[in-house]
Parts: sequence; structure tokens; C-alpha cells
Amino acid sequence: MELKISFKNDYSEGAHPNILNLLLKTNLDQEAGYGDDKLSKAAKGFIKKRISNTDAEVFFVSGGTQANLLVISHLLKPYESVIAVDSGHIEVHETGAIENTGHKINCIPNKEGKITVAGIQSVLDVHTDNHMVKPAMVYISQSTEIGSIYSKREIEEIAYFCKENQLKFFIDGARLATALTSPSSDVSIEVIARLADVFYIGGTKNGALLGEAIVFKNSVLAEGFDYYIKQKGALMAKGRILGAQFYALFENDLFFDLGKHANAMASKLADALKQNGYSFASRPVSNQLFPILPLTVIKRLMEKYEFYVWQKLDDSQAVVRIVTSWATEESWVDSFISDLQVEI
Amino acid sequence: MELKISFKNDYSEGAHPNILNLLLKTNLDQEAGYGDDKLSKAAKGFIKKRISNTDAEVFFVSGGTQANLLVISHLLKPYESVIAVDSGHIEVHETGAIENTGHKINCIPNKEGKITVAGIQSVLDVHTDNHMVKPAMVYISQSTEIGSIYSKREIEEIAYFCKENQLKFFIDGARLATALTSPSSDVSIEVIARLADVFYIGGTKNGALLGEAIVFKNSVLAEGFDYYIKQKGALMAKGRILGAQFYALFENDLFFDLGKHANAMASKLADALKQNGYSFASRPVSNQLFPILPLTVIKRLMEKYEFYVWQKLDDSQAVVRIVTSWATEESWVDSFISDLQVEI
Amino acid sequence: MELKISFKNDYSEGAHPNILNLLLKTNLDQEAGYGDDKLSKAAKGFIKKRISNTDAEVFFVSGGTQANLLVISHLLKPYESVIAVDSGHIEVHETGAIENTGHKINCIPNKEGKITVAGIQSVLDVHTDNHMVKPAMVYISQSTEIGSIYSKREIEEIAYFCKENQLKFFIDGARLATALTSPSSDVSIEVIARLADVFYIGGTKNGALLGEAIVFKNSVLAEGFDYYIKQKGALMAKGRILGAQFYALFENDLFFDLGKHANAMASKLADALKQNGYSFASRPVSNQLFPILPLTVIKRLMEKYEFYVWQKLDDSQAVVRIVTSWATEESWVDSFISDLQVEI
Amino acid sequence: MELKISFKNDYSEGAHPNILNLLLKTNLDQEAGYGDDKLSKAAKGFIKKRISNTDAEVFFVSGGTQANLLVISHLLKPYESVIAVDSGHIEVHETGAIENTGHKINCIPNKEGKITVAGIQSVLDVHTDNHMVKPAMVYISQSTEIGSIYSKREIEEIAYFCKENQLKFFIDGARLATALTSPSSDVSIEVIARLADVFYIGGTKNGALLGEAIVFKNSVLAEGFDYYIKQKGALMAKGRILGAQFYALFENDLFFDLGKHANAMASKLADALKQNGYSFASRPVSNQLFPILPLTVIKRLMEKYEFYVWQKLDDSQAVVRIVTSWATEESWVDSFISDLQVEI
Repeated sequence: MELKISFKNDYSEGAHPNILNLLLKTNLDQEAGYGDDKLSKAAKGFIKKRISNTDAEVFFVSGGTQANLLVISHLLKPYESVIAVDSGHIEVHETGAIENTGHKINCIPNKEGKITVAGIQSVLDVHTDNHMVKPAMVYISQSTEIGSIYSKREIEEIAYFCKENQLKFFIDGARLATALTSPSSDVSIEVIARLADVFYIGGTKNGALLGEAIVFKNSVLAEGFDYYIKQKGALMAKGRILGAQFYALFENDLFFDLGKHANAMASKLADALKQNGYSFASRPVSNQLFPILPLTVIKRLMEKYEFYVWQKLDDSQAVVRIVTSWATEESWVDSFISDLQVEI
Repeated sequence: MELKISFKNDYSEGAHPNILNLLLKTNLDQEAGYGDDKLSKAAKGFIKKRISNTDAEVFFVSGGTQANLLVISHLLKPYESVIAVDSGHIEVHETGAIENTGHKINCIPNKEGKITVAGIQSVLDVHTDNHMVKPAMVYISQSTEIGSIYSKREIEEIAYFCKENQLKFFIDGARLATALTSPSSDVSIEVIARLADVFYIGGTKNGALLGEAIVFKNSVLAEGFDYYIKQKGALMAKGRILGAQFYALFENDLFFDLGKHANAMASKLADALKQNGYSFASRPVSNQLFPILPLTVIKRLMEKYEFYVWQKLDDSQAVVRIVTSWATEESWVDSFISDLQVEI
Repeated sequence: MELKISFKNDYSEGAHPNILNLLLKTNLDQEAGYGDDKLSKAAKGFIKKRISNTDAEVFFVSGGTQANLLVISHLLKPYESVIAVDSGHIEVHETGAIENTGHKINCIPNKEGKITVAGIQSVLDVHTDNHMVKPAMVYISQSTEIGSIYSKREIEEIAYFCKENQLKFFIDGARLATALTSPSSDVSIEVIARLADVFYIGGTKNGALLGEAIVFKNSVLAEGFDYYIKQKGALMAKGRILGAQFYALFENDLFFDLGKHANAMASKLADALKQNGYSFASRPVSNQLFPILPLTVIKRLMEKYEFYVWQKLDDSQAVVRIVTSWATEESWVDSFISDLQVEI
Repeated sequence: MELKISFKNDYSEGAHPNILNLLLKTNLDQEAGYGDDKLSKAAKGFIKKRISNTDAEVFFVSGGTQANLLVISHLLKPYESVIAVDSGHIEVHETGAIENTGHKINCIPNKEGKITVAGIQSVLDVHTDNHMVKPAMVYISQSTEIGSIYSKREIEEIAYFCKENQLKFFIDGARLATALTSPSSDVSIEVIARLADVFYIGGTKNGALLGEAIVFKNSVLAEGFDYYIKQKGALMAKGRILGAQFYALFENDLFFDLGKHANAMASKLADALKQNGYSFASRPVSNQLFPILPLTVIKRLMEKYEFYVWQKLDDSQAVVRIVTSWATEESWVDSFISDLQVEI
């Protein structure tokens, strides 16, 4: 049986060769444990330089759910809640990880996957006394679960609103690379770092074996986080492994280059889909595409490609999810486009 | 400045070359996420075969504290407690991770790092009503924090006592490889697997980049653990990374070979220390040595070697900790021995 | 300033005289603590007899939020969730108490304050794997937050659905007395006790100083609950105080008589409101009324009576909440009705 | 069968008549719920005045374990711990309530039931990095579990040590009344209130039906505590009940008068025991006595009196616990003394 090409997600492969090479090269160096190694220290320096904030505090953890639960429960008091949209990762795909740390998510309807200031205000309006939780944080993802991205203006509005209302602002950057390097984006990583109280830089979905880099704006916000990471079982003995991922990604601009590649592959696919007359459930701007395809086309494509059917619309068509990544080869994209056109 | 040779711990280096090679070889294979990859499945099969228990349920997580907190809080009801010795890792070196999951540790004095049935009984004796927690689990480490190991008979006694008293029996195997392959050991991994309700096989301290393999005796004990791992942020998207570690360690007997090597290096050191007339704070049986050395010797050795001063005894001598590992080169050991003898 | 008559809630006064008299009469008896007193034991017997279930296990706690958080977190594993409507007390008015115990609430739209089997099914439909919580309980209130009540048929449907789908069924009976004795009700307390896995009988809102009686269907469901109550700080040293409340309420049928009185007062008010041409935001069936009144009328009534403006509808009218209780005097109702009519 | 007189504890009876009378007198007043009633407000005023601290923030909860878990987990971050002695109530008699809120107790040996500055220092000495919890609070009880009391000097030393070391200082006052009014005490309630960051005033064991008054030194320490009380299920709907207890206890000096009575009864018993030649396991200074009695005497006394055998010493004698209270009648004491003397 021939292997199919997978467009299921952006974590199907191992790691970018630069990362593996760095692991090989440094493998027998004897290093301090628990993140006190040279690679981790250098990688943190690279990130702080890249975001132009030497006051930032950087911590590496192994995955996104871990990053989310650590950050949110670190910054909230027991009776404080976090505001998120109903499509947010913390609301739907983390097995209640946030609630397991004791905190309620105030869940509001999303608008193209995004939160709005009006939505946040609506939560504040009804949380008026001590019989209800006290909303104290806003959580967004850049890019969102449906591949949309916030504009600079949108992020600024949320950040200012949060500041005025004493809400912490947290940006989940599991797919930050493709968000920042989207042709539709006007947001730089410096802007993210300046406007968010805390955010994380996703490695797992952008070419790393594992790893997310949590970035607190300053040491006050990060106080005690080194204890908390250990307590929650998130401190790796061989911290060098995490350090190596971000060293390789941020020594030069590999992190951004990988995002660009994933976006370029997605754009090529999106253009071809448009040219073939297909529309999208969500505007294609990053490395997740949600085209609407006839079931006959889906069936045929699935003989050679793997991807998720996201939502069946009716008896003849469905939304599918196509994801590209740092590892997506252009020949796969060309092949997919070619197989797509047969139908026309 | 010349680099010193480190005997500080068994997680100073990266991974055994076999593991890195497997990662390289499979790097571009497109795999399912979250542990459903081929490497993880095969590795679980290898482990179940090796312990002669096809009913076992195996889960891979990234580190020891994570394994401990997951297992203990998975198996206990909120008001139930775990019994451990005062030198136990969960009691002293996990930043209150167990308590953070809501459970009390009933802490009793250790005997050479080990728990005794009499000690467990003493906890049961005083926990008699609902104004106290209900002890429901016994936790031991094999090997212990001071490098000692339980004999088969000791483990059997604990296991039988636990069964009679409806206590779950959990063995922390962060250093299981050196415990099992110690020349002083009469315990096989099948014995561990048969007597414990749940145990874990430490990869991090035995040549893996990361990873511990949690083994439940049967599916009843493991019920819902796949949800719980995700909820606690311990489910890695690229589960293949963890799978690869244990695939390489258990495809053949690499896991045991690495343990043997560490023990051999430790034995050679221990013999030389004895021959030089030094005694030990704890009998040397695995890869952690606790010799008592004159401060002058310590000072001189520290010019070329790194190790921890464990406990100062008086103005002239101290206990130090010397740890060997899969990566310890025999030439380092020889060099250390040679430098040791200068003093005599 | 003349004191206003309050229709704000059903816990404005102290306790029914029978309860106070029992406290006085038994005050100097020396009793065992922590619920082992004679009053508590007898009260539990009265309740078990009244619900015709001698296998039941009864526990007294001081309030409704405490009862809810204890029961829900006692019966759920960490990654399991409870399904409730968006107007449910646990969702909106308990300061995230359920989430603070680590559990997510799967929140669905209410239908007249009530849950439907279709709504429960919709939660099960989308919770299909270990990246999401595992729904394991259904929570309803009888009567609901807006005063509506479930019919016997509705409760049966939910109970059967729960049984088929391995969901625990929990009924919050903070206002069970008025629900059971509503002229519109066809549900007896035996039915509640037979169909629910666990429910509680509200004392606080039906004439007690404090106290809710949690009733588990059998000892298996209640296993360890005596430890859990103590651990959560809910075990009162002078358990006799709680025992006395339920002794007085269930020695004869005082519990039901008080509910009937509150309902009778509410019915009289509701009839008068209808006769004056006013409609209701929620059908008046128990002791909470939600009439829609002109702002002018509201303003005038508020000079003599206290009640909540629930929701402003437009510039001329609003929904108000009028609550009657065991302590509502008929003369107050007559006075209110009389003042209402002035406007016509 | 004749009823025995109980010296088992100080919560065997209901409430002091003044409290019951206040409940009766105010029973039908319509009051705001959740602590916003007139009695609660006035009672808080009385307490603030009595401790000469108008900046204090006072909260009423129903019991001691509840007070302890609320205060400790309110003031600690997740990875912070509380230091207590091995005989401390939170360590041995609260079913792991503190750990259930996520916090470790650093447990040290007691000295006559008390903590010492040297003991606290010993905990700080070994908690040096993020692999261990961060001690952040000291917990003591006044009086202690074995009836001993801290002197003013001892409390000052602890308080100053705490301040120097950034440790919060919390005093559990479940039996504060008898501690403060002990003939051996040189500590006033103003001293307690000035030196502790937070303490609570025990009502349950000093004549109240229920209730402990938690007193934070200032509003910064208490910030958000009103939310937290509700979240933990500790906010009573009829807060007036708690208010009434402390209104009656602090309107005048009833709280202190009841403590004096219990102490006087204990002193009389202690003197008689001494005169009969018996010694004590713990110096008799408050309302808990721990005399060492021959088993024959114990057996005989138990025919007419109830008390606990605390610890069997050998085949002929045991330590027993005799507790007096606000409700202990002098005639009972005289009778006990008389029966004691028969033996001589």
C-alpha cells in the first residue's frame, strides 16, 4: 500500500534538520540540568533580543496545553476567571485543563475565531459581585483555531481594553510563526511582546521536536514561575533539549523562515482552490485552510492525501481542513493541485 | 579553561546514539500525533513483552515528577493519602507536586533510604477515622534517593502487605535500570511488574533525551488515564519522540545494557575508594556513590571533577555524591581513581 | 423610616419557631460532635423513611453551594464534567465553585430554566475523545432558578437517559419544598429519591436557620463522603444544629407545610397580577414570580416593598422577581395586591 | 440508665443563652443575606473595636477547618507552603484539608505543643531552591492542641522572625478565649491582633452554636477573600446566624467571661488532681487537662463521667484528657473531685 501524503496537521514530522544537527553536535557535552544549560541560556537571549525586551522572562515547556494551564493558573487568584471564545483551544481541546487548575473560563461567541472588545465587555457587565467569578484575564490565540489572524489594530484594542480594566492579556502562540509571517499580517513579534502581558512562541507546530517558549513581559509577572513549572511536572531534567529547539529556531531567523514556507505552501493551495471555483468557510490567511469541497472530490482526494473533514454541510459538500507546515514539500502541493483539477 | 569531568548526575549528556539515530531515520515519516504513532505502539509492545504482561497498559510522559503526580492523583480519591519515606523524591524534591494535586503524603522515617512494613503499619495505626486522611497507597523508589535497592524479598513483603491492607503499590523507577542491573540485585523487571500495581521505567536517567514509561498492571487501573494525561498537560503532540526513546531502549536490551555500564563504572570507583580506605555513608550498590572523603581530597578532586558535596560531617571530612551513567567513560573513572590515589 | 416588606428572597428571616424551640429544648444536652448526635441520627431516619429508601445515605451540610461542590467533585473523576443549563446555579451564582474543585461545566441553553434530553445528547455528541472532558453527570435544579418545575415525565426521561449513558443524575433541591408542593407539580419526594443518584433537600430556603440534606441513593455512591465533607471544611463540630433543623422539618410534615404556605402566598399574588392584566416572563408555578410590570408601578411598589428588578425590557417596563416563603404573612400579600390595584 | 457528665470536649452543648435569646429576638426581622445583615455588621464593629484595629477586615465562617483552609490557601501561591508543628490541627486532624487546597505543610517537631523560631529556621535552611516548596507562612494555635499557651514573648519572637523572613503569621484561635483568659497568660487579644497577619476567634468551642471570626490585619491581606469564601462554599445565606453569635459574644465581654469560666473550672480540677498527687503530661494552663491517672481510677471515674483516654503509658496508668467549657457546671467539677478522692 502506497503511503498517503498528509495535510492533517503541522506536527506530523519530527524536527527541522538544523535542530537535529544541533542535538547531535552537542549530545555529549556535559550540561547542567533543569534549564541551566548553555543552550537554554543562549536561546533565551536570542528570543529577548528578537522581541527587543531585555526585561522579559523566558521559560521553555514541552507543549501548548501545558503552557496554557501554567500561565493562566500562575497569574490568576483562585476565584478569578479567564475570558475566551467558544472556539478557543483552552475551551474545547484541552480536556478541561484550565478548570482542573481551579479556574472558570468565561466563554463567549467567536467572530471568525476571534474575540472582540464588545464580547469582553459583555462578560464584565454581568460579573458584578462575589457570587460570580472575577474575570481577570483575556486569552486569545494568534493564529486562531480556524486559521484567522488578529490585525495589529485588533490586538491593540484588546490590549488597551485589558489595561483599562485590569485584565491580564495572554496570547497563545502555538501557531505564532505562520500568523506573524502571513502575507495578510501587519503584526510583528515585537508588537505581540509589547502588547501582551505574557505570550508563548510555539515550537511544536513549527519545526521543533517539542517545546513552547513562554515569555513574560517582566520579572514581576514571572515571579515564582520557576517553582510552579517544577510543581506542575513541567520542568525537564534535560532542559538542554528544549534549549536546543529554540536555539536553532532563533539563532538566525529559522523560526520565521519555517512559518513563511508553510504559508507559501498554503497560499499556493488556496489560490488553486479559488481558481477551481471553491469557496472557504474561513478566509485563508495562514497555514490552515478550510475549503468547501464536493463530497465526490473529497473522496477522490482522500485516496492519495490525508486531511480532516471538518464539517459536513449537506449531502453534497463539506468543509475540510488542509494544514501545511515547515515540512510540506512543494511537490506535494503541486500534486494535490493537479489532482484537484481533474474534477473540473 | 579546561572542562571538568562531571559525576554530578546521570542526566548530564544528551541521548544514547541509538536513540538519536532512530530519531534521524524516522524524522520525515508522517505520523499520527499524541502517541498514536508507530514507534510508540511498537515500544509499548516491546515493554509489555519484556515484563511478560500483555494486560499491562503503558503510557509515556516526559519526566519523573510528572509521572509521580499523574499516577498518584489518578489512583487516589481526594481524601486519600500516599505513604512515603522522608527521603522520598515526592516528599523532598518535587516542589510539593503531590500536595498540589490535593493529596497528603504520610511521611515516615527511612531505613537506608527504604520503607519498611513496620513503618507503613505505624501510619495505618494512627489513621483511624474521618478526621484524618485515609492512607491508600505506598510509594517507593527503586533504586532509592541514596542509591540503595530493595531486595526481592523486601518488595514482596511490601506488596503482600499492601494487598492485605487495600493499599495501591507504586514503584518510582526513575533509576530502575541501574537498580535492576546492580550486581547486588535479585529483582528482575518481571518481578517489579508483577508486584507493583503501577511503576514507571525511567528513560531520562538512563540514556534517553526524555521520557518515563508508566506501566499499569491492567486496564482497570489505567481507566481514564489517557484523559488525565491530556488534562495535566503531559500529552505530547509529537508522541513519536517519546516512542522513539523507548523503542530504542527496549527493541533489544539497550535499557539494561546502559544500566549495567553505569553500575560497572560505579563499582570500579567504589572498589578504588574502598581500597584507598574510604568508607561510605550508604552501601554502594548502584550508580550513586556516597563516599566519605577528607575535605583536602575533595578540594583537590574538584579541580578536575564535578560532584556534589552531600553533607559536611565535621571540619575535616564530608559525604560526597558521585554518580555514573550510561555516558560515563571508563577513562574518566581511571583518571579519577588515579587522582584519588595521589593523596595516599 | 418605616420598614419595608421584603419579597426579595426566601431566606430573609431566621427559622421557623419549631426549629428554634427544638434548639432551646435540647440546648444543654451533652451530645457527641460531628453529626453523631441523637438529633442528627433521628433526622436521617425521618428522611430515609419519608423517601421510602432505607439504603439511602444522608449527610447534612450548611449551604447549597457547599452541597453542590461536595457532591459533584465527590462523584466525578478529575477529567469528568457535569452538564448543566446556562441559567443553572452552579454555572452562574457560585463563584466558580465547581471549577475550583477541578471540573468543567458543559453549559447548554436552558428551556424555561430546564435541561432537555436533546441538550444533554448534544454535549455527548461532541465529546468524543480524550482531548475533551468526559461528561459524566447531569445537574438540574428542582425548582429551577426561574421558578419553573420539572414534571414527573421530564425527570423520568432525564433519569433514563442518564442511566443508558452512564451519567450520574444529581438534583439540586435548594427549593425542593416549593417545587414538590406546587399545585402544578406531579412529582413526589419518593420519585425524586428513586430517580436521582443523589439529590439534596434544601433547608435554608424553607424555614431552617441553615442546612441542606444530601441524600445518596445508596452507600456505594456515598463511600468516603464522610471523609470528604471533613476535608472540605463542611463538617460542623456541633452537628446537632444541623440535625435539629431536619428533625423539626421531617419529624412531621413541617417541611412540606412550609412549602405549601409559600406556594399559596405566591399563587395569591400571581392570580392578582393576572387579574390586573400583567403577564409573566416565566409561568408562575412555585414561590418565585417573574411578572412584567410598568416602571411606574415598580417605582410605586418599591416605596413599601422590597424586590429585585430582574431585567429591564424597555423604557416602560421590566421583569421583577417576587419571592414568597414560609415566613410570608398573608397580610403582606393582601397589602401588596391592594397597592397593585391602585394603579388600574 | 443515668446520663454521664461529659468532659470530652468544649462543644458538647448548644449555645450560651444570650446567643439563643438574640436569635429569638431577631428571628422575624427581614435581613439582607450573605453577611450584609445588621447583626453581622455590628458584630464586626465590636470585634474591630475590641482589638483596637479599625483597619482590620473580619469574616465569619462556620468552623475551624474551614477557617484554616480558607486563610492558608488564600494567602499562599500554589508552590508556597505553611510551617506547622507535628501536633498541629492542620497536620493531624483536618483530613488533609490544607493539602487538598494544593499546599504542603512543612511539619516540624513540637515543643510542648508549640513551634519555636529555631524550628522555623530549620525549615528555611533546607528549602533553598525551586525543587522544593517555598515556605511562606507560619501557623500556630493559641491555645495549642495539648492546651499549652504561648507567652507574649514567644509570640513576639515568632512574629518578628516571620516579618524578617517574609513569612505570613497565622494564629488559629479555635480556643482563643481560654488561652487569653488563662491565669498563666500574659497575652491580650490586642497583642494577638497586632502581631498576627491573620488570626481567627473561635466561637464554636466557646459558647456559640457555630462560627469562627477570621480577622485580617488589613484590607490588602483580605483582598478578594469575600469571593473566595463564596467559592469554597463557606458563605452562609443566612449570615445573620453567624453575626448573632459574635454580636452576643462581643457586644459586651461575654466571649472573655465564658473563657474565664472554663478556665476556672479547669483550675479547680487541676488543683484537686495535684492535691491528690497526680502529675500531668502537659502543664495545666487552660481548659484542657492531661492528667496521668491510674487505670483503676480511670475505670471508676468513667462510670459517671465521659472523657478521652489520650495515651496509655503502661499497664497501670494512662494520660486522660479532661476538657471544661463555658457550660461546665461547678457542681460537676465538685462531684468529679469528690469521686476522685475516694481512691486516696
